[in-house]
Amino acid sequence: MPRAIASSETSSPAVAGDSADSTRERIVAAAMQEFADRGIAGARVDRIAQNARTSKERVYAYFRSKEALYDHVAEREMTALVEATDLDPADLPGYAGVLFDHFVERPDHYRLITWGRLELAESSTVSDPLSRTIESKLAQLRAAQRSGLVDSSWDPIDILALINQIAATWVGQPEIAAAAPSASSTLKRRRAVVVSAVECLFPRAE
Amino acid sequence: MPRAIASSETSSPAVAGDSADSTRERIVAAAMQEFADRGIAGARVDRIAQNARTSKERVYAYFRSKEALYDHVAEREMTALVEATDLDPADLPGYAGVLFDHFVERPDHYRLITWGRLELAESSTVSDPLSRTIESKLAQLRAAQRSGLVDSSWDPIDILALINQIAATWVGQPEIAAAAPSASSTLKRRRAVVVSAVECLFPRAE
Repeated sequence: MPRAIASSETSSPAVAGDSADSTRERIVAAAMQEFADRGIAGARVDRIAQNARTSKERVYAYFRSKEALYDHVAEREMTALVEATDLDPADLPGYAGVLFDHFVERPDHYRLITWGRLELAESSTVSDPLSRTIESKLAQLRAAQRSGLVDSSWDPIDILALINQIAATWVGQPEIAAAAPSASSTLKRRRAVVVSAVECLFPRAE
Repeated sequence: MPRAIASSETSSPAVAGDSADSTRERIVAAAMQEFADRGIAGARVDRIAQNARTSKERVYAYFRSKEALYDHVAEREMTALVEATDLDPADLPGYAGVLFDHFVERPDHYRLITWGRLELAESSTVSDPLSRTIESKLAQLRAAQRSGLVDSSWDPIDILALINQIAATWVGQPEIAAAAPSASSTLKRRRAVVVSAVECLFPRAE
């Protein structure tokens, strides 16, 4: 759960200049990899700086702490997820398929978020951007229920929770994925299972 | 994914004696808490020893490494899960409800397993006890399909993967759980949602 978000709009004077943007981008990319690999406690700012071809001091000039850097990367990932996966209430099975594709293409995204869920469990607050994302999807589902596109007997939060969870069935359970016979483990088949399960629960509008 | 399992049957001569069993139990209990809180890389054997009222040397006399201790604890947890949740192929929604109860009662279990999934992702092998557990559940489902209790159009591995995943809908997504309005967030209601979702996918045999 990303907590507070580092301010990403203002560069400090110490890091302003022509190459500031590209240095900052390299730091964020290196941080993404480091956090996905090792989590927050396990990440080392030294290694992030080295992989971004800059100094530890420079990293702290952009981001005040390792935690602020994590929050920034997690918010960026959440935005990328929302942009890559458009929720169409008339086609929830299709939405589940697109979520599945995102998890397959970006295993580092899933790892990054899962580390945060474990390591930030004590902070019960959810970041504003993430709250807004969830709220906006809930509003779409409520409107679709009012217009008869989605079965009104479900609470929208349950629809969202179940679809997200089902889309992550294999990425979230590597031990079951590993136990699958090879004929069952093609991506195409797994994607079809996710889509059919969601179709059974939340059928496409006719 | 637990990897190799530490041999737990033989005590070394250095730790034999009347109190050996209870020391060992205290080490395992302290390790469970430490791994659930901090994961494998973040766990400290010093702290485990201190919380178990023993020495670091004694911990290593029982378990050859921190990783071996994790593997032992994870295997023990997996056994406890299997014992607490009996798979009845004629009542898969009921099985999902019991799994849900286990995750609610033992959030430390879910955390322990999730850390392992992240931290041991590179080891593609699944421990023998875990493989055997999965295989035995798959055999039950196959037999139930042959006798007509369970729809044969599903691959048993997909049934198992979906039920496990759906049962963990809220424990696995704390940010969605936190976004739920309070009326939606009672355990009773969440359990009912898990059971209905699985009932829709894999109805009880008549």
